[in-house]
Amino acid sequence: MNLLAEMSWPEVEEYLGRDTRVILPLGAVEEHGRHLGLGTDFIEAEAIALGTGEATGVAVAPTLNYGMSLPLMGFPGTLSLSPHTLVAVLNDLLRGLYQHGFRRILAVNGHGGNVASIHSAVQMLAQDLPGLRVKSFEWWMDAEVNRIVTEMMGEQTGSHASAAETAFMLAVRPNAVKMQQLTGRDAPVKPSREITTQQTFATLYPDGIMGLDPSGATRAAGEALLKKAVEICVRELEEWPES
Amino acid sequence: MNLLAEMSWPEVEEYLGRDTRVILPLGAVEEHGRHLGLGTDFIEAEAIALGTGEATGVAVAPTLNYGMSLPLMGFPGTLSLSPHTLVAVLNDLLRGLYQHGFRRILAVNGHGGNVASIHSAVQMLAQDLPGLRVKSFEWWMDAEVNRIVTEMMGEQTGSHASAAETAFMLAVRPNAVKMQQLTGRDAPVKPSREITTQQTFATLYPDGIMGLDPSGATRAAGEALLKKAVEICVRELEEWPES
Amino acid sequence: MNLLAEMSWPEVEEYLGRDTRVILPLGAVEEHGRHLGLGTDFIEAEAIALGTGEATGVAVAPTLNYGMSLPLMGFPGTLSLSPHTLVAVLNDLLRGLYQHGFRRILAVNGHGGNVASIHSAVQMLAQDLPGLRVKSFEWWMDAEVNRIVTEMMGEQTGSHASAAETAFMLAVRPNAVKMQQLTGRDAPVKPSREITTQQTFATLYPDGIMGLDPSGATRAAGEALLKKAVEICVRELEEWPES
Amino acid sequence: MNLLAEMSWPEVEEYLGRDTRVILPLGAVEEHGRHLGLGTDFIEAEAIALGTGEATGVAVAPTLNYGMSLPLMGFPGTLSLSPHTLVAVLNDLLRGLYQHGFRRILAVNGHGGNVASIHSAVQMLAQDLPGLRVKSFEWWMDAEVNRIVTEMMGEQTGSHASAAETAFMLAVRPNAVKMQQLTGRDAPVKPSREITTQQTFATLYPDGIMGLDPSGATRAAGEALLKKAVEICVRELEEWPES
Amino acid sequence: MNLLAEMSWPEVEEYLGRDTRVILPLGAVEEHGRHLGLGTDFIEAEAIALGTGEATGVAVAPTLNYGMSLPLMGFPGTLSLSPHTLVAVLNDLLRGLYQHGFRRILAVNGHGGNVASIHSAVQMLAQDLPGLRVKSFEWWMDAEVNRIVTEMMGEQTGSHASAAETAFMLAVRPNAVKMQQLTGRDAPVKPSREITTQQTFATLYPDGIMGLDPSGATRAAGEALLKKAVEICVRELEEWPES
Amino acid sequence: MNLLAEMSWPEVEEYLGRDTRVILPLGAVEEHGRHLGLGTDFIEAEAIALGTGEATGVAVAPTLNYGMSLPLMGFPGTLSLSPHTLVAVLNDLLRGLYQHGFRRILAVNGHGGNVASIHSAVQMLAQDLPGLRVKSFEWWMDAEVNRIVTEMMGEQTGSHASAAETAFMLAVRPNAVKMQQLTGRDAPVKPSREITTQQTFATLYPDGIMGLDPSGATRAAGEALLKKAVEICVRELEEWPES
Repeated sequence: MNLLAEMSWPEVEEYLGRDTRVILPLGAVEEHGRHLGLGTDFIEAEAIALGTGEATGVAVAPTLNYGMSLPLMGFPGTLSLSPHTLVAVLNDLLRGLYQHGFRRILAVNGHGGNVASIHSAVQMLAQDLPGLRVKSFEWWMDAEVNRIVTEMMGEQTGSHASAAETAFMLAVRPNAVKMQQLTGRDAPVKPSREITTQQTFATLYPDGIMGLDPSGATRAAGEALLKKAVEICVRELEEWPES
Repeated sequence: MNLLAEMSWPEVEEYLGRDTRVILPLGAVEEHGRHLGLGTDFIEAEAIALGTGEATGVAVAPTLNYGMSLPLMGFPGTLSLSPHTLVAVLNDLLRGLYQHGFRRILAVNGHGGNVASIHSAVQMLAQDLPGLRVKSFEWWMDAEVNRIVTEMMGEQTGSHASAAETAFMLAVRPNAVKMQQLTGRDAPVKPSREITTQQTFATLYPDGIMGLDPSGATRAAGEALLKKAVEICVRELEEWPES
Repeated sequence: MNLLAEMSWPEVEEYLGRDTRVILPLGAVEEHGRHLGLGTDFIEAEAIALGTGEATGVAVAPTLNYGMSLPLMGFPGTLSLSPHTLVAVLNDLLRGLYQHGFRRILAVNGHGGNVASIHSAVQMLAQDLPGLRVKSFEWWMDAEVNRIVTEMMGEQTGSHASAAETAFMLAVRPNAVKMQQLTGRDAPVKPSREITTQQTFATLYPDGIMGLDPSGATRAAGEALLKKAVEICVRELEEWPES
Repeated sequence: MNLLAEMSWPEVEEYLGRDTRVILPLGAVEEHGRHLGLGTDFIEAEAIALGTGEATGVAVAPTLNYGMSLPLMGFPGTLSLSPHTLVAVLNDLLRGLYQHGFRRILAVNGHGGNVASIHSAVQMLAQDLPGLRVKSFEWWMDAEVNRIVTEMMGEQTGSHASAAETAFMLAVRPNAVKMQQLTGRDAPVKPSREITTQQTFATLYPDGIMGLDPSGATRAAGEALLKKAVEICVRELEEWPES
Repeated sequence: MNLLAEMSWPEVEEYLGRDTRVILPLGAVEEHGRHLGLGTDFIEAEAIALGTGEATGVAVAPTLNYGMSLPLMGFPGTLSLSPHTLVAVLNDLLRGLYQHGFRRILAVNGHGGNVASIHSAVQMLAQDLPGLRVKSFEWWMDAEVNRIVTEMMGEQTGSHASAAETAFMLAVRPNAVKMQQLTGRDAPVKPSREITTQQTFATLYPDGIMGLDPSGATRAAGEALLKKAVEICVRELEEWPES
Repeated sequence: MNLLAEMSWPEVEEYLGRDTRVILPLGAVEEHGRHLGLGTDFIEAEAIALGTGEATGVAVAPTLNYGMSLPLMGFPGTLSLSPHTLVAVLNDLLRGLYQHGFRRILAVNGHGGNVASIHSAVQMLAQDLPGLRVKSFEWWMDAEVNRIVTEMMGEQTGSHASAAETAFMLAVRPNAVKMQQLTGRDAPVKPSREITTQQTFATLYPDGIMGLDPSGATRAAGEALLKKAVEICVRELEEWPES
């Protein structure tokens, strides 16, 4: 596989002579309920990125493990970049990739809180860097992926630390899953026009789970879900002509 | 009506003795097809804010006319704050409101490109400012509002410079509507994981309209839509206990 | 009139084919004594800008309602951008205007606290943007305007929330004038080398008025003053060859 | 004399036990016509500061030699901080002085381009630092000083690199004065609403002098002028009760 | 082992009840000669951090894979944060750790280019965060570690991509080592007072190796070196009383 | 001598026609034990810069008196730029020098805390400014200089406010030396992996001296040391071909 981490600079040079695509996994370090590890988001993003890299031969950049998690800072262990910092990091990384000749960048983003910063960074860079193209894939917002989740585990309204995330982690990092810590409580996602912050999140979702209790999560669903996510990323990379 | 623009400082002082709510209209200056004025977003936001202020007596702050419109900078006349600048502006305004004693702020946001910055600003401020609460209302993303649009003008898949926006402007600022400039072309919104930028927007939507041709827009629908939007904002303000 | 707010992008494109001038009104939201609305500065700037646009056909950009008002933050309702934020906003707007082809920009600035930021932004942009030219007009600092003020209302030493400002508002937004709130107190402007801040302003000028009590302000003087201000702006635009 | 540069930390500690005043000289490095050295502004500011320190025993901080000189960057040798950088420097220095216990700071500012940044920095710091008071003295804008200039050298309309500045430099650093380089050309200061930038300054004032040819400058006038400037600064320090 | 990535928030909460130490591995993504992978620095830092976490039970935070590598941007694949961005990231992470209650942070830093930013971030935070203590360990600058290198592989003057680094990678990630790519060329480190930049680095060290050809590197030396590095980190954590 | 402070712009223009080298002295304002003035670092840097300018005819820029001294802020009188501010200042100055045509810049840096910022600024600028070359000279880190120190005053382990610094100041600014304030206490430099901050510095080095008591410092050693430092700088300038 083409991991930038393991490639030497002459190997990258050679790669850029025949391909301008790269996969960039983006994560976060934040609470995921009483039962999942703080690294859930970057572990999931990396799993999809590695699967996609293996299937396509497209180079995979090292994972940015930290993301924008301000509203969850009330939970012990959450570590957040400010939105401004995250935009600066993405600006530096994307600008660097472009400088070397990469042009089509697939961000495999494991965390909702990063979406705004990815868009900001790309839209600002587009002023300067002609031909830069960035796709962003968020597995848990994907209709095809969610169809599998529903088929295998029933209707799931949850989002953060949900059955889908739990299943995913059972498949890729069981050490970070402690099902016995689940309380059985549901915390239905309350639609509201009030912006959720560190001040209000813990009141709305005291266990750190948004949605139904994920006790029914299965490793098999996680594996199916990962397979589908990789399949979509492969398709996105293959159907992406250089501009 | 309680317009901050017309209130003197002793009047604001007196107001704050009995209420901590305020309405903040947020707009943008960007192309809206061949037929709508560049000010569409701030004109609409201001119309809803004024209607809501009139109905409730809640103070209305002056409109922030400019917003984050980078992806549309390719069209003549679009003027955009960078995301970083917009966050700084919102930080200054919200911090100022808080310093005076405002605690519940309803952002009536007329522009999708502002959403990320509003969230960023509020989530950062929440670290420092206990008791600050911010709601954000986006009329075009609202299910109730969209139901009216559909009832009165048929199914509309459009988003930017759509029939709904056109109807709204016919109702509130007909001078900024030039229906004769419409080309009749549809530009269906193409779902894509590629992030739209200044480089790609004009290729996807050459007239600057995202969606179906809005020729069928009616002033009556615009009036109904505005009424509904105000009704929702009034409800949001009334059902908002101080924390 | 050529309001950018009402012009569509093809209209701006057509305009830029024959003219590179634009008027940009800049305001502030800050206390103006016990009798004037917080929006005084942007209301006045907008009135001059609209009058000038009407007389010349030069395009008028939407008003930036907020400005740099830090020293007045002690008075309820004042909302201030930090100097750094204001420079960022002006940088974004001027850069955007330049990108579309505007070259001669008349800033109609209604607020003294903005002057430094306008100069900073323009002087920094001038490093990058050849041919950018910016004029800044401040009505209350203008000798011709002040002559009219004196002729019609007697010698006025005041500056902020003065008889001149009061007259102006009587002419353009009487709803924002509450003459009955005036106390009759004079607060002579004390020349000092100490920099006025939020900590000291309210001590020096407890009503928020700098100068003589403006009870003698008349609407007629306001109208004459506006007419003269527009006349000067028209002249500035007409005697401004493209470089 | 109490030069911070020569005082050890226990001496500063002892000083702060009996006084909270300090003098901070601010300069610039920029062209001053064909005849004066680039350091003119900081040399003058330092001369006044040292004279004042000697007369009062008030501590004198090291000079900030560089200032905001963007509009003069077109002339070889001018070195400018951006306005943003200068505000950051002043913020750091004033905050540091305050942290140690200084409360009354007299900025002896030798350069017009610094004024806006001094005001910005102080007005922002005033939000955080109760009791911070800053005076700013600009010798060339002072009526008393200008009276002496006129008495000794006749009416002078010049400002930058004028007869007054030349006289001052003859008095304090004759090595930096080359009278033989003067061309005898006058460059009357043209009042204009257009903001002067690097692009336009050299066209308006090709020798880098704003105003009348300063050939008539005398060392005696420079000495008188310095004496008066020091006298004013002494008065400002003496008539400045701690708040 | 206490990996934050695998710990849930209640587990972190429980940990903080008995310990305030944490290990933070810091890396870089940059060329390491023709034979080592771009991820060398973060792979090495993570290996030491994991070893130390295992030996002590101290929590290990996720690795920051990217660092400050500007001078190496001329080599394909190097990706660098600007110094300003890196300081912002470290500020956010250290502030977050502190907010949760961590007080003694051992940064296991795999990259020389990060040292300045770590110091900057910590020294700025120390103004605000009483009791924050940070140690920084750089294995290749350590006398004890270098003694082992010399004993096992002879005198090594190299630094970047040296025999020591090569041995380390043979021990922990042989997939990222391609010994056959070595050219046998030495590139002695030239002491110079000129600051090395992207413009000059590749001229001085064309293969991207600073120092002697590392062909003699052995896995055994890498293992010994890692063991020693872990031993030192364990000692640093154990001999670190809470202040 | 070619002091920029005394040169007029036509003289700089003429100089740049034949030379692209310049000397930039960088200092700091920070405690230097009970016996040395706060300006020690900039006084020393300026002395070396002036000596070098005199010997070579290379232009000398005005001294940047302030530097990065955060860890010493606990001692009265220390004034520090934040690292971010210092990088911004250096960026502005180096960019300005480059704009005028200077290409080889010798930073005579009197303060260890500035090193990181000098490197950061230069490495960032190198992305944009082809041909920019910067050398940085730190006298107290120089082997040749230290040999003289040892020969004349015995082995010295001290660094900050040491015998070497004391000797230097006796030679160049005896007014800033108060030998009678010395306590005779040694404060051996304790090697530690913990990053020294404002919180810990004063505990480790209560007098503000790092190392042995400098009572044995002699003016003769200071003169020899300065002579050697100048000699090295002259050599660095002479053996520096334009690229």
